[in-house]
Amino acid sequence: MGNRERIIETTLRLMNELGAEAVGTNRIAAETGVSPGNLYYHFGNREEIVRALFDALEHEFRDVLQRDTERPLAPQRIAAFYLRTFDLAWRYRFFFSGTLGLLRRDPVLAGRYQALQSWAIAELDSIATGIAEDGNLAHPRGAEGIASLALNTWLIWSNWIGFLQISGIAEIRRADMTAGINQLFDVIAPYLVPPFEAAIRRAITDEWAP
Amino acid sequence: MGNRERIIETTLRLMNELGAEAVGTNRIAAETGVSPGNLYYHFGNREEIVRALFDALEHEFRDVLQRDTERPLAPQRIAAFYLRTFDLAWRYRFFFSGTLGLLRRDPVLAGRYQALQSWAIAELDSIATGIAEDGNLAHPRGAEGIASLALNTWLIWSNWIGFLQISGIAEIRRADMTAGINQLFDVIAPYLVPPFEAAIRRAITDEWAP
Repeated sequence: MGNRERIIETTLRLMNELGAEAVGTNRIAAETGVSPGNLYYHFGNREEIVRALFDALEHEFRDVLQRDTERPLAPQRIAAFYLRTFDLAWRYRFFFSGTLGLLRRDPVLAGRYQALQSWAIAELDSIATGIAEDGNLAHPRGAEGIASLALNTWLIWSNWIGFLQISGIAEIRRADMTAGINQLFDVIAPYLVPPFEAAIRRAITDEWAP
Repeated sequence: MGNRERIIETTLRLMNELGAEAVGTNRIAAETGVSPGNLYYHFGNREEIVRALFDALEHEFRDVLQRDTERPLAPQRIAAFYLRTFDLAWRYRFFFSGTLGLLRRDPVLAGRYQALQSWAIAELDSIATGIAEDGNLAHPRGAEGIASLALNTWLIWSNWIGFLQISGIAEIRRADMTAGINQLFDVIAPYLVPPFEAAIRRAITDEWAP
């Protein structure tokens, strides 16, 4: 691994641990074991490192949201989808628990994040629409109801890890993640056909079993 | 209004506008029109001003969550409850969109916030339990289902204004707040008895009417 990649990896680790605003380039250079001059050879400033991290996040995120979503959407695949998205939120937690601060410092990043967010909410909408078209979701409020489900799913997903951190949980465990997946699932659960709902909830529990 | 109160008010305005992490004591003193020495006469550091703001937030918040919640809970009172809580989230938006950063800098504040959050989630739980006992909520998953409703309500409420800010909405309008109240209401809506649900949704719209 070259210095550029090591700088990116160190930044991710430090920001996840301490929060983005508490991590400056001197600290990143020292912890990576490179000189500040070498860091500035690769990145003009801290924001450029954050943008490189966002590149990775965006790439993985688009993959995670689009992978294995062919119809019909089976319960096991929906459970696996929830798990993949939570794993990603955990690995890039500095971003989701400090979004507004990061975007305020970098208008270019703000534009890119807003585009990704809009795309993600639209994807969630189309997944819920797919479940409805498969006959597994009864939606009393039509397209407006589906849009609301997609947005609430986004709000809970993007804030769950931050909520655990705010709550002062020192070490986040598997049970905390399962609780989050169940909270997320409870957004759509009351609209699902009962056996379909039960199968997804079972699959969520099974996925975490050793 | 004395200098102490003016310093608190200026800090709230600046932090709401720019984010807590971007606002230091020099800027606060300059915008208040007092000397740094005068600011330090009233507050030992920036964290002490934030704690004073949190005192005010906590006081108002406990009032807002407990006021007018006698049973039976009528639709108009539930709608008014949503409106009051959104107004508070708006006025203290720096806190809710930068919580983790603020708590990381001040362990005493972290403990106080965690206690307030636990209390709020328990209050939301008891409000939902009250609606169920009034016969207006059918809860297929019992106490566990109610707890999940309370937690999702908290997650959406505490993150809605931050979501609007992250989305780059330059000026937040009444329609953005109504949208948030409807998102929040959609957490509990699918469990409500239909005429009760319809009456609350109507009351939310009416409350905003000129």
